[in-house]
Amino acid sequence: MTPKITAFKWSPDGGKGMARDTRVRWALEEVGQPYEVELVSFKQMKQADHRAKHPFGQIPTYEEDGQTLFESGSIILHIAERHAGLLPTDPHARARAITWMFAALSTVEPPIVEREQADFTDPGQPWHSPARFGFLEDRIRVRLKELADYLGDRDWLEGEFTAGDLMMVMVLRRADTWLLAEFPTLAAYVARAEARPAYQRAYAAQAELYSGEPTDSF
Amino acid sequence: MTPKITAFKWSPDGGKGMARDTRVRWALEEVGQPYEVELVSFKQMKQADHRAKHPFGQIPTYEEDGQTLFESGSIILHIAERHAGLLPTDPHARARAITWMFAALSTVEPPIVEREQADFTDPGQPWHSPARFGFLEDRIRVRLKELADYLGDRDWLEGEFTAGDLMMVMVLRRADTWLLAEFPTLAAYVARAEARPAYQRAYAAQAELYSGEPTDSF
Repeated sequence: MTPKITAFKWSPDGGKGMARDTRVRWALEEVGQPYEVELVSFKQMKQADHRAKHPFGQIPTYEEDGQTLFESGSIILHIAERHAGLLPTDPHARARAITWMFAALSTVEPPIVEREQADFTDPGQPWHSPARFGFLEDRIRVRLKELADYLGDRDWLEGEFTAGDLMMVMVLRRADTWLLAEFPTLAAYVARAEARPAYQRAYAAQAELYSGEPTDSF
Repeated sequence: MTPKITAFKWSPDGGKGMARDTRVRWALEEVGQPYEVELVSFKQMKQADHRAKHPFGQIPTYEEDGQTLFESGSIILHIAERHAGLLPTDPHARARAITWMFAALSTVEPPIVEREQADFTDPGQPWHSPARFGFLEDRIRVRLKELADYLGDRDWLEGEFTAGDLMMVMVLRRADTWLLAEFPTLAAYVARAEARPAYQRAYAAQAELYSGEPTDSF
């Protein structure tokens, strides 16, 4: 059975690939697995039919062989366990690659999303201020510096490209471009990943969906 | 080789088990695996020796058979893959349990930690205000309600107790007690988990370390 994922019917970022379905698309492209996409509106995401797939009313979900998964981390790990190309076969290297998946999601992404969310949820609140943005951005910088120090002159986090790189790059792409540019090591790392044919196919597939005008049904 | 983990030399919470080593201790207790603990001060955590184990200068780390891992999610998944007791053997049930580990870390924990951090990092800032605390707590409530709705009258998230429950319960314990009490389903779920002998051994082991006065070397 061809796996089916869900994605936004309308893209808040205009198709820049920030939504979490792009991560899953990329993983599927890396392993050469075709997939179907079901689009859900913001309203549908919060309704019972979709919540039966995703208790927190988000995308992406992943359906295959009568099973439904959610959380991009879990979906990508599931894909990586079943197909060659995203996890090393050596047990030690495999565990390190999985460690970087969790590091991307648990340590690097939260401050980036916090800064991003501030522009969506905080306007009009007294704390929506340049001083607080600076504070939040400094928190991101701490993580970016630590990651850049670790990466050094490595091409990828652990030898070959893995699901850990895939997740880390997708998280870094959510940081503001000018913030990432302060760390040339990381900007080059992201560019190296974005040059992968699988990434380009995944990016193009989602961008194509969102190239028109938003409909009134998002 | 007995695995070795790292934990705080001094506990910011006075031994209430909020630090992320407690999760790993609990997982090791559930599978019956003895372990050693190395304590690191806040200063040591940020120095080169520890950063060689953990690029982000945090605890816990996990060392076994010449391999070093970090990130509690990765460490617990590693333990669960190598010992019976934390992941179902059925592939579908196993993937669902792993999904809940990621949901705990990526979807439920970030708003809880954001509220918690505000009391550590924001005092003196103009946005450290009751209005913002209410805003942050409402964000937590959205996730807690969704989780409670899903849990319903289940004992555990997917059939038997799994690493997904372990992670979710540890994340919920970080929410303020009064906030959790607004969702009796979740308060009962946490209490059910805390009653497990393995949890009690893990909790006692970390609490014992922090029962004295803080030293000047934390």
